Amino acid sequence: MSQQSLIEQLVEAFCCLPGVGPKSAQRMSYYLLERDRKGARHLAEVLVNAVDNVGHCSRCRTLSESELCHVCADQKRDASLLCIVETPADVHAVEQSISFRGRYFVLMGHLSPLDGIGPDDIGLDLLSQQLKEGDIKEVIVATNPTVEGEATAHYIGEMARQQDIKASRIAYGVPFGGELEYIDAGTLSHAMSGRREF
Amino acid sequence: MSQQSLIEQLVEAFCCLPGVGPKSAQRMSYYLLERDRKGARHLAEVLVNAVDNVGHCSRCRTLSESELCHVCADQKRDASLLCIVETPADVHAVEQSISFRGRYFVLMGHLSPLDGIGPDDIGLDLLSQQLKEGDIKEVIVATNPTVEGEATAHYIGEMARQQDIKASRIAYGVPFGGELEYIDAGTLSHAMSGRREF
Repeated sequence: MSQQSLIEQLVEAFCCLPGVGPKSAQRMSYYLLERDRKGARHLAEVLVNAVDNVGHCSRCRTLSESELCHVCADQKRDASLLCIVETPADVHAVEQSISFRGRYFVLMGHLSPLDGIGPDDIGLDLLSQQLKEGDIKEVIVATNPTVEGEATAHYIGEMARQQDIKASRIAYGVPFGGELEYIDAGTLSHAMSGRREF
Repeated sequence: MSQQSLIEQLVEAFCCLPGVGPKSAQRMSYYLLERDRKGARHLAEVLVNAVDNVGHCSRCRTLSESELCHVCADQKRDASLLCIVETPADVHAVEQSISFRGRYFVLMGHLSPLDGIGPDDIGLDLLSQQLKEGDIKEVIVATNPTVEGEATAHYIGEMARQQDIKASRIAYGVPFGGELEYIDAGTLSHAMSGRREF
């Protein structure tokens, strides 16, 4: 086989991005080379810089370029309230949407025994230590409503109970602005069983 | 304003890609940092490498890392037949789809007087020179069927006529496998006026 051309290599490299197939990768490659070489160079620089310097927050495990992320470092956040999510993107989503003033703990995944992912792989040893320290009074588990997310939530709920810490799971039901007609049966049955009195 | 974090910078840098908005850019950034730092580093390397080393073919103007692109350098291609397209991606498309054995000329755009893009900006001076050299016997114009593409095609047709070179425009009509019902009126009227006898 002859050696790949640089353009082919670039197309292939772009395919590592989520949601990018060969056709989009080709479009990106040609676009950058034809019209935005400055942007391409900037992207490469920032990419290397981020890969080299972004690590994990030592308290909440989210992606952070400093020892403590900006939420953990913020003295005004309520240290007694902990929201547990699966990914840094989930932190971003919660920060965007609601007036949550506590701190986070990011699992960077979920329990998945079949894939060999146990409690220690998602930082539950660190979480357990933090729960024992006694500052945390309430835990809100906001893992995804998947089988693995539910199992993880259950496990964390048990951990909190052992330390006599109040634990709750965020509500799963019909999304705001959604129409019942188009909601899947699973969500609807969750919404039914999670119903609240007026 | 406080300084942007590296992750925010990365999200913004990804937004320079075509078809990538803030949400996809965020997804790409988190994905690379969480799961594929090797791929990210590789992408950055190839990107810089491509930006530094990919230039234009001196004969057909397509993107190429060598003085002559692989088509122009190929002695087996028919030098008497020239297909004129707007972009390197169009070369790729023609190469993929049909058994065209001639060479290409890539305009890297189209005539657009309103944007100040004249004949010399799309390499028509170079093309005119090549047409005068006498090797080219036939020119196939495959610019896009837009107003600018049509104007460009017309202009090139005139150039070829002046050198007594046969010039044709590829057929525009109902795409193969398309259904008449869903074809727009413009395409259909093109298809009608371009009808051929059995």
